[in-house]
Amino acid sequence: MVSSGSSPAASPPFASKRYELLTLGDELLLGLTANGHLTFIGAQLGRRGVLLQRNVTITDEADAIARQFRESWAAADVIITTGGLGPTCDDRTREVIARVLGQQLVFDRSTEVAMEARFAAFGRKMTPNNLKQAYRFERGEVLPNAHGTAPGLWVEQDGKVLCMLPGPPNELQPMFVEQVLPRLAKRGLLLDREAYVQFRTAGIGESALETRLQPVFDRHGEALSVAFCAHQGQVDCRVSSPSGKLSPAQLEAVAAECAQLLGEDFMGCGHDSLAKLCADLLRAQEKKLAVVETATGGLLAQAFTEVCGACKFFAGGVVCCSNDAKMELLDVPECLLLQHGAVSAESAVAMATGAAETLGADYALAVTGFAGASAAEGSGGNPVGTIFIALHAPHGVWSKKLNYPGPRPTVKVRAVNAALDWLRRELLRAQHGQASPARRTGVMQ
Amino acid sequence: MVSSGSSPAASPPFASKRYELLTLGDELLLGLTANGHLTFIGAQLGRRGVLLQRNVTITDEADAIARQFRESWAAADVIITTGGLGPTCDDRTREVIARVLGQQLVFDRSTEVAMEARFAAFGRKMTPNNLKQAYRFERGEVLPNAHGTAPGLWVEQDGKVLCMLPGPPNELQPMFVEQVLPRLAKRGLLLDREAYVQFRTAGIGESALETRLQPVFDRHGEALSVAFCAHQGQVDCRVSSPSGKLSPAQLEAVAAECAQLLGEDFMGCGHDSLAKLCADLLRAQEKKLAVVETATGGLLAQAFTEVCGACKFFAGGVVCCSNDAKMELLDVPECLLLQHGAVSAESAVAMATGAAETLGADYALAVTGFAGASAAEGSGGNPVGTIFIALHAPHGVWSKKLNYPGPRPTVKVRAVNAALDWLRRELLRAQHGQASPARRTGVMQ
Repeated sequence: MVSSGSSPAASPPFASKRYELLTLGDELLLGLTANGHLTFIGAQLGRRGVLLQRNVTITDEADAIARQFRESWAAADVIITTGGLGPTCDDRTREVIARVLGQQLVFDRSTEVAMEARFAAFGRKMTPNNLKQAYRFERGEVLPNAHGTAPGLWVEQDGKVLCMLPGPPNELQPMFVEQVLPRLAKRGLLLDREAYVQFRTAGIGESALETRLQPVFDRHGEALSVAFCAHQGQVDCRVSSPSGKLSPAQLEAVAAECAQLLGEDFMGCGHDSLAKLCADLLRAQEKKLAVVETATGGLLAQAFTEVCGACKFFAGGVVCCSNDAKMELLDVPECLLLQHGAVSAESAVAMATGAAETLGADYALAVTGFAGASAAEGSGGNPVGTIFIALHAPHGVWSKKLNYPGPRPTVKVRAVNAALDWLRRELLRAQHGQASPARRTGVMQ
Repeated sequence: MVSSGSSPAASPPFASKRYELLTLGDELLLGLTANGHLTFIGAQLGRRGVLLQRNVTITDEADAIARQFRESWAAADVIITTGGLGPTCDDRTREVIARVLGQQLVFDRSTEVAMEARFAAFGRKMTPNNLKQAYRFERGEVLPNAHGTAPGLWVEQDGKVLCMLPGPPNELQPMFVEQVLPRLAKRGLLLDREAYVQFRTAGIGESALETRLQPVFDRHGEALSVAFCAHQGQVDCRVSSPSGKLSPAQLEAVAAECAQLLGEDFMGCGHDSLAKLCADLLRAQEKKLAVVETATGGLLAQAFTEVCGACKFFAGGVVCCSNDAKMELLDVPECLLLQHGAVSAESAVAMATGAAETLGADYALAVTGFAGASAAEGSGGNPVGTIFIALHAPHGVWSKKLNYPGPRPTVKVRAVNAALDWLRRELLRAQHGQASPARRTGVMQ
């Protein structure tokens, strides 16, 4: 949830400009495809100081498109549309909108050449229906598409901007970042840099965070706007200066002050994930990581393998449900699993150490627990939502018991984030020569 | 993409009813949260014969809510809203909409009692701001919330229906299925059963599928409506009878005819995933499965561990990048990896067999390849997008080479689906006593 302070969208001179996003397609309304365009474009605009005012998703039907576009064009200053630019007969957005704007569509020879080259590169012949995609607005421009056939379209009319983007995300996203954002910035319709300084924190709740940072914020009074966004064990904080009284450098200084106050709870400035931060620390220290997981079923391995160049630091992962797999792959002693149960501090520690030794890793994370899959789960005095994580490091191995209420997907994500954050903190301490002391008990709660 | 035939929403008597969904929240417009409510509610309505006509996402600001609600209320017959019913000061949807509808809000004692019981059950004390959630419309009803504090609200006025749902998905989803759908069905605003018979297919393209099934469809002429939806190696087909000329039993007979024609390409009727179907076959045959993956980084293990009761059939998974992990965990011979490369048919086969033997599984899937993470990928004559999958079964082991163009996430999902579908087919054959013959070469392309 977003809270506290005014929105970063309040910056002049485009504060009064209204942005709307029209996403087209029955597949969105039938729930067959998630509306990833809203997530992507909303976040990109937000970073540049614009709060998207409305997103409307409508059917592919011509009347619906015309009615909605007419209404949105009357209300908005910038309209972005997605989808409906392809070669087939249900791609009619271009034609419908041209009619509403009173524009003709004209054939664009440069687009035809680019499409022919693309088909030739793939050794395919272009069918005639593709030529439909080479039409642009007579008083408008083409946004070339390096990743597909349908180019984007750009129109300025009635003091407003219309930007039409192709539906496939791998075509839309680079086009938006490389072509649309610079054009909007050039026309003063958004900032040409990020509107705020974001820093991320982990392991501290939203209200505790606010309380700890309030003295810093208070010193800047109304010149500073602060927004928090909490998600699954992590809280992002965005500081901005809607009035422009604080320069970007001053905002960075505010973030640096917060970093000082927060210590290890401060993850870093920017948008890096916990897995990315761990990866950077592992690479800098030339250490390798292994993971073993039961309740999170592959999510922890996924978090690391998503990071570019994971092979450099990721020694491997094991996903297991059964005791057999733990014993066979990781040399976890059977007597230990039987005595303490698979969901226990002792088993988590044995799994982490087993993973590190078997895979030749310096660090290892183990996650075991009851995420709440079936009624049979949650036993031995541990209710559903009970998770044990263990961290094996070169100088010791520890475990933690966590308990998360909530539905299964939430429990899994929180468990993964808790494991990642623990590793991050331990790697930070190792970097500063302050590694946690090894203890005889090996259990930290 | 949805194609062919008229939409299943054309059924009488609610064909002319207009459904709109209002999703509220700055976090959606800032791209901080994906709009899962659209995906869920759109799919649920679609199954009952209703095509949602519009989804509008707006900010939490009172004026924006009032303006949009007024417009939607004039246009729609059924409006569903999500979010803004909570206890904090930015939860103002209830108040704003009451004003537009000219209704008073009245305190609902039964809701207060339910909230108090909920807080007591968690051993917490209810703060006074929670009482805000106990207000309902004077001429309206409460939809009790078994999973959270804010109940849903139901209003019938001006011949229209307004249904307001709480934002958290684990509260909204059961409320929608258990309370909202039956209420709408009772009022004749959607079907009281699924509007179509869906069957899923795998391993056949959309146009080839249409060509093969056309003779079946043609026999029923205009009484039958057909829609296809393709996603990553799988095509769903929905047959319905908007005019009502074909009964549900007749539609099922059409699906059975298609099943006959399609053979193994027919996955089954309903909404089950490939992993679910594999799980059912494995359980029925009392067999265990192991997986090992490089390029898909945990996604394959995830597909299986997501299935309820995965421990019954899932022996374990290994996620590895390095040759060391393959050698150490799965006894893949180093000479083989060095001679043929980690991305090769031979290595895939050795990985699958190693996983099956190490984890004591009957079946094993291996996926290795270049999904396209970094520039360094794609080597040894194999471009990015090259994937080898191997399947180990009790009676033999085989590999397949696949090549998927497209961005990294797409390559990963397609590789996972190809592996799942191969396993499904082999398990089907085993069930029918038609297991693939073991071959000396062990390589199938």
